[in-house]
Amino acid sequence: MHNQAAIDELITTLGQRVSQSKSDLELHGRSETHFPDAPPEAVIYPESTEEVAQILRTCHAHRCPVVGWGTGTSLEGHALALKGGVTVDFSRMNKVLDIRADDMDVRVQPGVTREALNHELRATGLFFPVDPGANASLGGMASTRASGTTSVRYGTMRDHVLALEVVTASGQIMRTGSRARKTSAGYDLTGLFVGSEGTLGLITELTLRLHGQPEAISAAICGFDTVEAAVGTTMDAIQMGLAMARIELLDEASVRAVNAYAGSNIPVKPHLLLEFHGSDTMVRETSELFGELAEARGGSGFDWASKPEDRSALWAMRHNAFYAILGLMPGATSMVTDVCVPISRLAETIEETQRDFAAHDVTGPILGHVGDGNFHAILLMHPDDSAARARAHDAAHRLVERALDKGGTATGEHGIGMGKLRYMEREHGHGWAVMGQIKQALDPLGIMNPGKMVPPSNL
Amino acid sequence: MHNQAAIDELITTLGQRVSQSKSDLELHGRSETHFPDAPPEAVIYPESTEEVAQILRTCHAHRCPVVGWGTGTSLEGHALALKGGVTVDFSRMNKVLDIRADDMDVRVQPGVTREALNHELRATGLFFPVDPGANASLGGMASTRASGTTSVRYGTMRDHVLALEVVTASGQIMRTGSRARKTSAGYDLTGLFVGSEGTLGLITELTLRLHGQPEAISAAICGFDTVEAAVGTTMDAIQMGLAMARIELLDEASVRAVNAYAGSNIPVKPHLLLEFHGSDTMVRETSELFGELAEARGGSGFDWASKPEDRSALWAMRHNAFYAILGLMPGATSMVTDVCVPISRLAETIEETQRDFAAHDVTGPILGHVGDGNFHAILLMHPDDSAARARAHDAAHRLVERALDKGGTATGEHGIGMGKLRYMEREHGHGWAVMGQIKQALDPLGIMNPGKMVPPSNL
Ligand SMILES: Cc1cc2nc3c(=O)[nH]c(=O)nc-3n(C[C@H](O)[C@H](O)[C@H](O)COP(=O)(O)OP(=O)(O)OC[C@H]3O[C@@H](n4cnc5c(N)ncnc54)[C@H](O)[C@@H]3O)c2cc1C
Ligand SMILES: Cc1cc2nc3c(=O)[nH]c(=O)nc-3n(C[C@H](O)[C@H](O)[C@H](O)COP(=O)(O)OP(=O)(O)OC[C@H]3O[C@@H](n4cnc5c(N)ncnc54)[C@H](O)[C@@H]3O)c2cc1C
Repeated sequence: MHNQAAIDELITTLGQRVSQSKSDLELHGRSETHFPDAPPEAVIYPESTEEVAQILRTCHAHRCPVVGWGTGTSLEGHALALKGGVTVDFSRMNKVLDIRADDMDVRVQPGVTREALNHELRATGLFFPVDPGANASLGGMASTRASGTTSVRYGTMRDHVLALEVVTASGQIMRTGSRARKTSAGYDLTGLFVGSEGTLGLITELTLRLHGQPEAISAAICGFDTVEAAVGTTMDAIQMGLAMARIELLDEASVRAVNAYAGSNIPVKPHLLLEFHGSDTMVRETSELFGELAEARGGSGFDWASKPEDRSALWAMRHNAFYAILGLMPGATSMVTDVCVPISRLAETIEETQRDFAAHDVTGPILGHVGDGNFHAILLMHPDDSAARARAHDAAHRLVERALDKGGTATGEHGIGMGKLRYMEREHGHGWAVMGQIKQALDPLGIMNPGKMVPPSNL
Repeated sequence: MHNQAAIDELITTLGQRVSQSKSDLELHGRSETHFPDAPPEAVIYPESTEEVAQILRTCHAHRCPVVGWGTGTSLEGHALALKGGVTVDFSRMNKVLDIRADDMDVRVQPGVTREALNHELRATGLFFPVDPGANASLGGMASTRASGTTSVRYGTMRDHVLALEVVTASGQIMRTGSRARKTSAGYDLTGLFVGSEGTLGLITELTLRLHGQPEAISAAICGFDTVEAAVGTTMDAIQMGLAMARIELLDEASVRAVNAYAGSNIPVKPHLLLEFHGSDTMVRETSELFGELAEARGGSGFDWASKPEDRSALWAMRHNAFYAILGLMPGATSMVTDVCVPISRLAETIEETQRDFAAHDVTGPILGHVGDGNFHAILLMHPDDSAARARAHDAAHRLVERALDKGGTATGEHGIGMGKLRYMEREHGHGWAVMGQIKQALDPLGIMNPGKMVPPSNL
């Protein structure tokens, strides 16, 4: 392979931390979902920024492709090594470098996972809220602009990355941003690297915003007759400025799956799962107000859980929903979709999608971060039923088109990877060409995660 | 002039809306502050995006410089036509295009001012919170990444621009972002244009996030013996998660100025001015908790104003502080500085600055958006006292260096313009070169607001 020269050069300096073992290549050539395997030619485990810079300088000199790797949980084949080359696995750069409680920020290496970070923070009264379900790496989460259940209150990775250290395609070490909370000093390079999926450089350090642990937390669950009523209640609450820390929708099919999985007895209709953070008074007041809003739209069985164990049970249910849904069709594989629309269009988008699935014999329970207008359908199919696969793919395609028709985006939080590349032109028009110009400027040789993100001429 | 060919071509299509009148050129060649005048060769008043595209296509063909103009209130000489060419004044593109109350967003033309927008919104129960004091245009505010008194709660322009329509340097019309609340679809072009000060393209439309008007508002004022105690109380409150909508610091010199201007009798020591938004209960609870925190640090005279007229008086005092300070030295001109540091370093940064001013005989009251770590010193000098001017410039320079030493930024909200260009290399290192690469990619002829933002080789 023509990339072997780069790899050999790296072996002389990094030794055993350059692996070409079959298992390492296989493991890093796989994605969480339905994309065909695409292994790299070597996997490298750097331990410092300087080593990452060395890797990039060498790969740049040899025009060898470089793919970053956090924990590999991305869902659109983001980290597949489509053109071979080396995969840089950040699992050994996993130190929490500096917790600054006064400033409520923290400096971490990219391989730290969000659970590890929150574990380190537990004694400080602070926490890091972005929660993509999976125990992903913070470098990967920044690279996909991840978010999750708490974004309605706390925001996404875009809102939490204050500063970055990045190694550019040619191996220069660069710092973006600062520890100041806000700045008007020039182009927002931090924001440019957040969500760039490793196509512009590798992130070697992050400074992240933290939040104070709330004094009180309560959770609640509430059923509705229609998705429209559930979404309507959500909109009312947001417009009133109610401080919800989480507001998640499960549709009927998801509730059925959860009941079967957990042996629970939740009425089979759309439900909202909520969490409120604040002082005791505020949490009580907010929950009560929410209860009134829900009632006005026919919401029923508004149940609160202010005891930690009830709360845990509720969120375990939500977090296990994915497995519960898989359990609906034993042996099935899944396809996870991820669109986001203006909230006024959310109910119709979900309802049209449900009708579309029913009409085309597609099994696809829906759940979503409804406060953001973001939802997922989890499409199930037997791996050897190629007709079902085709039906699922077509339905997923129509779902994205539908979201774009409603003024939304092809991906609310999972990112582009391989699965959403085909929608970039429609979503961004000339903007996609501009993304290609930026790629060209920052990575003229096209070695950073090639085959992703930008138009084919820049791939 | 070699730009006259472009101007003549534009006159044939836009007629009277291309002005070369002396007064128009003079007016658009001036800045709010101390920079020497630099008039354009023509001022153009487009009325549509298509006209802006036409202007840029023509200027691109003739390599004629183009400078955007909102209301001209920027403080660092941002909109001065350093290389001549044309200034595009957006005052006729001042329509609120579409208020979408359900989604709490609004589509506006760039010439709409923030006061005009809030006036249009008054019947909807919604408001746009970003408040840079001046009644600036929303296009200008996006271009400088403006913020202000309410950013501690609601965020900056970066957090409020959901989508843009931009005309690129070559005259292509492009849309960035969408109405979805969040997205992971590609590079954050919206974020790249926010804060780019007209050096990458012209903004012809913005989609902005709105907020619900709070049910209850209360305001308060509280004195402290030291800046440290005031800042410490602010930090305590933020760490407790108290929802303050505004928290502003006035130092002793500012209080003295305000007293003299308004005939008030506020004790001459550092003060915090606060505002709380929420439900009645929340506002009451938050104010009380804040009062306790302040007391613990020796805060005194914690006065609330929940009546609208008292609140107005309080914020009028804050908004007039600039004029009050000017009043300290009749006939003086001013220099406004704007740094932002991690909040743990804020008290020392302010105190060192006060000592530095005293040691160098510089008059410079300090006030700030203390919740963000952002503050301004307003340096006063008689226009014909060149020694005083030099002292003020040197002190302002040391202030920026001090902020950078503390891990901060050269500008928290005003932007780079001409005044902060000299700090870009120190603040961003290799990142400044990367900004130059982006400029080169998007504006290869360098016609957009030339002389600003990027390294001299890209200017
Ligand atoms: C069960 C499940 C639930 C999920 N739920 C959510 C959810 O609710 N919200 C959500 O946003 N996501 C969700 N995800 C997707 C996934 O967790 C996120 O995309 C996450 O951000 C990926 O992080 P990672 O560390 O696994 O990155 P990886 O998959 O390893 O990499 C992701 C991308 O980032 C690049 N990259 C990784 N590290 C770096 C680095 N240091 N520098 C530069 N580039 C780098 C890679 O090249 C790749 O392009 C879910 C996944 C699973 C399996
Ligand atoms: C008394 C006073 C107090 C202030 N307080 C604050 C404060 O608290 N916070 C704060 O952030 N600022 C403050 N400012 C500064 C100023 O109000 C802001 O910088 C504001 O954002 C400028 O908006 P403008 O419409 O006046 O822009 P202009 O000054 O007209 O232009 C600013 C820059 O944006 C570019 N531009 C303008 N319109 C467009 C467009 N449509 N497309 C592309 N580029 C464009 C211009 O070329 C220029 O580079 C204050 C100013 C004054 C006079």
